[in-house]
Amino acid sequence: MKFINLLFLLLLLSPVNLLAQDQSIRDYGIEIGVLPPGEQNAITDVEGVQVGHQTIVEGDNVRTGVTAILPHDGNIFQHKVPAAVHIGNGFGKLAGSTQIEELGNLETPVILTNTLSVPTAADALIDHTFSFSENDNVRSVNPVVGETNDGYLNDIRGRHVSKKDVLTAIENAKSGNVEQGNVGAGTGTIAFGFKGGIGTSSRKLPNDLEGYSIGVLVQSNFGGVLQIAGVPIGKELDKYYLSDELNETPNGSCMIIVATDAPLDARNLERLAKRAILGMGKTGGIASNGSGDYVIAFSTAESVRIPYNSEQDLKSQNVLRNSAMSPLFMAVNEATEEAIINSLFHAETITGRDGHTVKELPVEQVLKMMEKSGRDGK
Amino acid sequence: MKFINLLFLLLLLSPVNLLAQDQSIRDYGIEIGVLPPGEQNAITDVEGVQVGHQTIVEGDNVRTGVTAILPHDGNIFQHKVPAAVHIGNGFGKLAGSTQIEELGNLETPVILTNTLSVPTAADALIDHTFSFSENDNVRSVNPVVGETNDGYLNDIRGRHVSKKDVLTAIENAKSGNVEQGNVGAGTGTIAFGFKGGIGTSSRKLPNDLEGYSIGVLVQSNFGGVLQIAGVPIGKELDKYYLSDELNETPNGSCMIIVATDAPLDARNLERLAKRAILGMGKTGGIASNGSGDYVIAFSTAESVRIPYNSEQDLKSQNVLRNSAMSPLFMAVNEATEEAIINSLFHAETITGRDGHTVKELPVEQVLKMMEKSGRDGK
Amino acid sequence: MKFINLLFLLLLLSPVNLLAQDQSIRDYGIEIGVLPPGEQNAITDVEGVQVGHQTIVEGDNVRTGVTAILPHDGNIFQHKVPAAVHIGNGFGKLAGSTQIEELGNLETPVILTNTLSVPTAADALIDHTFSFSENDNVRSVNPVVGETNDGYLNDIRGRHVSKKDVLTAIENAKSGNVEQGNVGAGTGTIAFGFKGGIGTSSRKLPNDLEGYSIGVLVQSNFGGVLQIAGVPIGKELDKYYLSDELNETPNGSCMIIVATDAPLDARNLERLAKRAILGMGKTGGIASNGSGDYVIAFSTAESVRIPYNSEQDLKSQNVLRNSAMSPLFMAVNEATEEAIINSLFHAETITGRDGHTVKELPVEQVLKMMEKSGRDGK
Amino acid sequence: MKFINLLFLLLLLSPVNLLAQDQSIRDYGIEIGVLPPGEQNAITDVEGVQVGHQTIVEGDNVRTGVTAILPHDGNIFQHKVPAAVHIGNGFGKLAGSTQIEELGNLETPVILTNTLSVPTAADALIDHTFSFSENDNVRSVNPVVGETNDGYLNDIRGRHVSKKDVLTAIENAKSGNVEQGNVGAGTGTIAFGFKGGIGTSSRKLPNDLEGYSIGVLVQSNFGGVLQIAGVPIGKELDKYYLSDELNETPNGSCMIIVATDAPLDARNLERLAKRAILGMGKTGGIASNGSGDYVIAFSTAESVRIPYNSEQDLKSQNVLRNSAMSPLFMAVNEATEEAIINSLFHAETITGRDGHTVKELPVEQVLKMMEKSGRDGK
Repeated sequence: MKFINLLFLLLLLSPVNLLAQDQSIRDYGIEIGVLPPGEQNAITDVEGVQVGHQTIVEGDNVRTGVTAILPHDGNIFQHKVPAAVHIGNGFGKLAGSTQIEELGNLETPVILTNTLSVPTAADALIDHTFSFSENDNVRSVNPVVGETNDGYLNDIRGRHVSKKDVLTAIENAKSGNVEQGNVGAGTGTIAFGFKGGIGTSSRKLPNDLEGYSIGVLVQSNFGGVLQIAGVPIGKELDKYYLSDELNETPNGSCMIIVATDAPLDARNLERLAKRAILGMGKTGGIASNGSGDYVIAFSTAESVRIPYNSEQDLKSQNVLRNSAMSPLFMAVNEATEEAIINSLFHAETITGRDGHTVKELPVEQVLKMMEKSGRDGK
Repeated sequence: MKFINLLFLLLLLSPVNLLAQDQSIRDYGIEIGVLPPGEQNAITDVEGVQVGHQTIVEGDNVRTGVTAILPHDGNIFQHKVPAAVHIGNGFGKLAGSTQIEELGNLETPVILTNTLSVPTAADALIDHTFSFSENDNVRSVNPVVGETNDGYLNDIRGRHVSKKDVLTAIENAKSGNVEQGNVGAGTGTIAFGFKGGIGTSSRKLPNDLEGYSIGVLVQSNFGGVLQIAGVPIGKELDKYYLSDELNETPNGSCMIIVATDAPLDARNLERLAKRAILGMGKTGGIASNGSGDYVIAFSTAESVRIPYNSEQDLKSQNVLRNSAMSPLFMAVNEATEEAIINSLFHAETITGRDGHTVKELPVEQVLKMMEKSGRDGK
Repeated sequence: MKFINLLFLLLLLSPVNLLAQDQSIRDYGIEIGVLPPGEQNAITDVEGVQVGHQTIVEGDNVRTGVTAILPHDGNIFQHKVPAAVHIGNGFGKLAGSTQIEELGNLETPVILTNTLSVPTAADALIDHTFSFSENDNVRSVNPVVGETNDGYLNDIRGRHVSKKDVLTAIENAKSGNVEQGNVGAGTGTIAFGFKGGIGTSSRKLPNDLEGYSIGVLVQSNFGGVLQIAGVPIGKELDKYYLSDELNETPNGSCMIIVATDAPLDARNLERLAKRAILGMGKTGGIASNGSGDYVIAFSTAESVRIPYNSEQDLKSQNVLRNSAMSPLFMAVNEATEEAIINSLFHAETITGRDGHTVKELPVEQVLKMMEKSGRDGK
Repeated sequence: MKFINLLFLLLLLSPVNLLAQDQSIRDYGIEIGVLPPGEQNAITDVEGVQVGHQTIVEGDNVRTGVTAILPHDGNIFQHKVPAAVHIGNGFGKLAGSTQIEELGNLETPVILTNTLSVPTAADALIDHTFSFSENDNVRSVNPVVGETNDGYLNDIRGRHVSKKDVLTAIENAKSGNVEQGNVGAGTGTIAFGFKGGIGTSSRKLPNDLEGYSIGVLVQSNFGGVLQIAGVPIGKELDKYYLSDELNETPNGSCMIIVATDAPLDARNLERLAKRAILGMGKTGGIASNGSGDYVIAFSTAESVRIPYNSEQDLKSQNVLRNSAMSPLFMAVNEATEEAIINSLFHAETITGRDGHTVKELPVEQVLKMMEKSGRDGK
């Protein structure tokens, strides 16, 4: 960490922005919250979770993509995971929400893409499910697809995402490091007036709290008054909703995917999902009218997994009690805040549809402000 | 009516079933509920509402289709209608529900089709919306698509509904008489072990209650213990859920679309939608685990219509008070019950996928049972 | 059963109504639904469940009371049961609903009383909880109290229910036979223009479906178009909402308590609760604007019981799978319908506040109508 | 403002804490958010809104009270206001929520008190409603009472709040300045390990956004990791949930009351209520398992007021469009954050039940930390 801080100091001294957007905020020594992250500081710290991207950049006007999140590497339809949805603001087109809520489970990967490509992605998830021979008699599938609107940078009306793109994102899914920023479903998104995108973070509970992991991945595309680790960046830059600099509606949306290895039933997953929104709030998001903000949470714990077919009407399971939820609530709050900030730290300036340019977060300038506030991690 | 009853008597005396499934239950003189129907006894009795079907029957295995319900004949995106969703059982794939709930409006036609064709239909609704030049700058559309599963009679995995089919259903939309039974999205559905399908009915309130109209259209595909105008048909035929004759899970689903010209806001439309489920219950439906039962309700009243763009932040509207809702609640209950029964009266025996045959409701036999119970309308 | 039917025949032949309101509809040989009832045909068929009443009839104007339902005879706070609430129509004053929904459990007896006595009953439940020495350190209690409005027959503004009345109802709680009609919280209620009250019924699943029991208890106080086992009694008597005879708003409400020994988690209990409303619909209830219709469902199964204190963060439990729910859905539907009809069969003509009289259901006349419809059980 | 800052500087230099807890954070020159407050920086900036307290401090063990919020000074039952509830975490005993949600209105003052005194307060609200002769025929009242648990400092099991206390709080209600801190329902509450209590704040939209006012009042009694205007106070003091210093469950709760003069219908009031939770999140609240977090929002605008009786079934109203909501969302977010911080700035060290002492926020130390972070408003 010391070396990084030294590097950082050197960079701060340099006259121009030499910082590539290839570091997470924590890489600069700045911590969000009080709980430690997992090894990758990514949703993939929850064992079994895989993430894949398909980035679609074509010509001048196409800036979009697909991100796939897989709760495990098996046949998800046959081995469903408990899941829940929380709707922060329902101005969005999330496919699959009512069945998750009713049955309390998820039976496909979660796909993120742009608003008008939800149908294509949903159709592709049916293809994906049918690609397993074990599913040959399946006649009902609940594809889960979230979205945000990248129409400022992307020719969204052209619907440039194909089913193949979606299947490729699923094929690309892997554990370990997760690419962030202008990638996959984050290719064309905007947050707080800066380039947004995909971001991720994780938390690990202390061993005396069973050492559960919580991981969050976001597709950031919303606005408000940007605050980084509590520092009022948006205000200091005079770039926020209703400011002179940015007097436009902060539409867009935020998709938040939460994974945990804690054995939670659907009811407590819904409660967990609800807390992610608090983390979004801490970045300065206001859940504006046009922002469709959704959280999908699932548990990867084997003990709560739901077989599609079972000879037993009864399901034996170990689930966490209500009274043990608070540490997880804190963890998801922190990881969501950090995942959103990471999406900004990784996203880069981009020019897209009709020459629209959206600038990246001026990381160097931001870090100076953080330092001035004593929040530079030193 | 007298002539019809005479005809009916003659038919009852004939040795074989001569009754074509081309009459609604009320045509046999049997009334459901206490309120009078509108002129067509159809959802189109609500002025401006249009219905169109595209029936898809190909070869031995394709038995499916599309039904489109339009709240008015204009550009729905530009002139949205207040709307609400009630989820009786969320085991289904309804597209568009969260935005309806959040914003309280509907901005596309409502499409009904089979479970696995929801994505195609949603994509087609985007095409439809973009086909209006007035919508050239629109970059977000909330397509609303409901479904039930016709996989027993239809090669549902083949996804035989095309975007063209959906657009054709919309083009076919008209006011006036509504075709019922094995048509459109009802082509391959099953209800109470008999052939189900599209059904419709309406109610008109007395003039001293402002004469409001309520219309209902259903896509029936569910089970339980069939009851027609209170007569326990399923029980008498020993054909019901858990009976020896029909010992299978009554999966499937029921989509219920409710239209009214009463000026209701989204909150009271949601309350109205909730009451439709009571009418479904009166047919003997039990909302089984596998039955995704959804109600979408909208108001066509001009005074509550919502312009997409407006120079005014304030919207002036006349809405019905809570205390005036009860007659509408009764009306939607009755119309839903009758629409479901009508779907059975109109549906005909059909053979589909893998030689599966589903028989029509034995209307003649049913009418005899009704007569025996003194419920034959005479 | 034969003897009863004979008796019944004799009574039908007698010139005046000799039928005391002391029989349930099934005692006349009339069956509702297709599943068999439990031994008592009461909510107490679910092992451990106890019901107690305190009937308050004083002077000319006080006609009210309290009914207590206990999920088991232990310390409920220390040994909570999984529970859920479904709100059919929220125009009511149910205490305790949000905590049941959030935590998925019930920690007090359920009390039913009149609308304006909810606070008194809630306070009494706190007393009751504190009366266990084991609860000496408890500082938070979630009292659950439902209500309907008996203000037509009862001087409801006088709030004549005392904490002692509530505690007495709890003390009176017992298993076995449940008194019905004008008793406890049903003393002053009205349903379909007739005297309503407390009613109960149960169902037992076949042994190959594990033989689970479901019991329902209702406090009936609502309106619509009365239908008994499908026979349109209200219509034939010209006594229904919007009829000349009964042109008044069918306000009031319906409280429905559902108990089962099936091991259900809160999510599936909520789904179960939702189905009870279908049974209410089959009696002709329309969930009018003024009718606060609530269902509270709980499971008594030991395997899902929730200890208040536990050294374990994990809870091991066997719960029923979604796919095994449909028979329970059918059972609760039938038991709710029958419980409401039983409330009418047991309630007797009463005169109360300001000389208001509400007549009992004319059982003899009703039975004749049932016979005419071939629904007399013979 | 200059004088205050000078005073503040002097205080900072003094060796002991001379700061009385009688200033709001803004009085020290520290601004939260970007929108300006109203004149009082209180919920009473929304014209017509009145607040009254009854503080109950008796002997060593009684530290509790009542706070009443009145939407207007008339007969609220006869002139209801549109209202909505958002449930952040339902582990609480809020009375009246389901009717607000169903009917979209509020018909009594809102009372805040301790958990076990909700029944008494609800009963008192019925008394209050009956005290208007205009309400002589009213037989149904929906009392709205929120609570948090002050059982650490207060002998809560003793239920020391009387109906008279509640009626006194209502009588005490006035516009203008609102007392904060250890007052009324905030007398015995704890937030972030410090003494919490009543706090309030307001925002006024710019004139080009119609100049609407939004006011918030909170009863703070929850935990997490305290953050003041973004500065991580809890972390710096090593006093937060899961820290060594404060390793206890941050139970308690937060009640948030939101008033606005913007003409909103119940649907948009619910959306507004949802955004208040984001403001709570910005103070570091994590909505822990035991924290019942509720928001009640209402509009005081005359144009949306709902008469109890009306000869008209139709209600004419001007309501704000969805697209005009974002500034209000930002305003409620900021005002909620500031109201919570104000509750801490005003609350004072107190000793209560069994000698339990809870210390006030060390304002002086906090201000130093703010200064160090460059967030001291200078």
